Amino acid sequence: MSNRPGGRSARVRADVLDATYAELVQRGYLGMTVENVADRAGVHKTTVYRRWGTVDVLIADALDSSRDVEWPVPDTGTLEGDLIAIATEVVDVFTDPGRSAVPEAVVTAALQSSRARRAKKDFYAARHAQAAVVVTRAIQRGEVPADTDPVEVVRQTCAPLYYRIFITDEPIDRATAEHAARTALAAARAGLLAT
Amino acid sequence: MSNRPGGRSARVRADVLDATYAELVQRGYLGMTVENVADRAGVHKTTVYRRWGTVDVLIADALDSSRDVEWPVPDTGTLEGDLIAIATEVVDVFTDPGRSAVPEAVVTAALQSSRARRAKKDFYAARHAQAAVVVTRAIQRGEVPADTDPVEVVRQTCAPLYYRIFITDEPIDRATAEHAARTALAAARAGLLAT
Repeated sequence: MSNRPGGRSARVRADVLDATYAELVQRGYLGMTVENVADRAGVHKTTVYRRWGTVDVLIADALDSSRDVEWPVPDTGTLEGDLIAIATEVVDVFTDPGRSAVPEAVVTAALQSSRARRAKKDFYAARHAQAAVVVTRAIQRGEVPADTDPVEVVRQTCAPLYYRIFITDEPIDRATAEHAARTALAAARAGLLAT
Repeated sequence: MSNRPGGRSARVRADVLDATYAELVQRGYLGMTVENVADRAGVHKTTVYRRWGTVDVLIADALDSSRDVEWPVPDTGTLEGDLIAIATEVVDVFTDPGRSAVPEAVVTAALQSSRARRAKKDFYAARHAQAAVVVTRAIQRGEVPADTDPVEVVRQTCAPLYYRIFITDEPIDRATAEHAARTALAAARAGLLAT
């Protein structure tokens, strides 16, 4: 059966959520409308209104759908290399306007809508769990103390970058990423990031 | 002369900017209007439109006006105590809805408006410079290496808290504040936060 149950509905959802991301990039959170998402997806707007209702629900569903997508967790052989790769990916996203528009819109949406806020929280929890694998492997290799909190190492790596991006609006580049990664690593090695 | 030149104009500005903060707390960035600010300030709306024009300019001017206000920089006698006080103040603001509304609105506004973004950047740069005094004093006391970057210690103290607040939506409390402060202090002592 090539036409599995739910196939058409799943395709509509995929098209609408792709259109949601594209509209976020083009117009931002405040410029986005349900009508424009429906137009771009080639779906009747009443379908989108009935199934999602508001822009906030569209954004939340788009986040939910991408939450569990396989994410290429780095595996460079050292925790330093892996943390630098994670930090550099954050810098690469936020120095590319075509990619930074989505997380910027998500932060805005989460400040306006509890549904979007919950989806953002779940999204970052999933990303933390995925990224923490690099620390778990490093514990097994004996690179950091056995009681290191893997998620806390990820937080310490990413937090200084997001702080510059969303709060202080200070520049970020590869050197900022490496500094954040190396500081987190040193803190972990010194036993400061224990569970 | 009790009625100094510019006195009335300065009073109108103070009233309008107070009203801007109050409206931000009550309605948030998206709910705020120039009319409501004018009404609350008891100023004719054409005056507010002529002088500020938009909500974004009102927010930016409110930030500019509070940027250089004296801020009670902690002076507990140790860098640990001072950094814990700074981190605890962040936690106290963001666990009080009446106080967190303003910085949340400022982050939203800065994502929409370049004028608000510039004001936010200048505001945090000024706060960093003020708070960094606690590190400068600690260098003079010999608590941390002489080449420690004072602002970087402040960033490392605050970043994990703002990351939880705006990005991952994870809980913060006094223990989170102390952990952030102590981790930043240990990193500084280990020479990781040098200029």
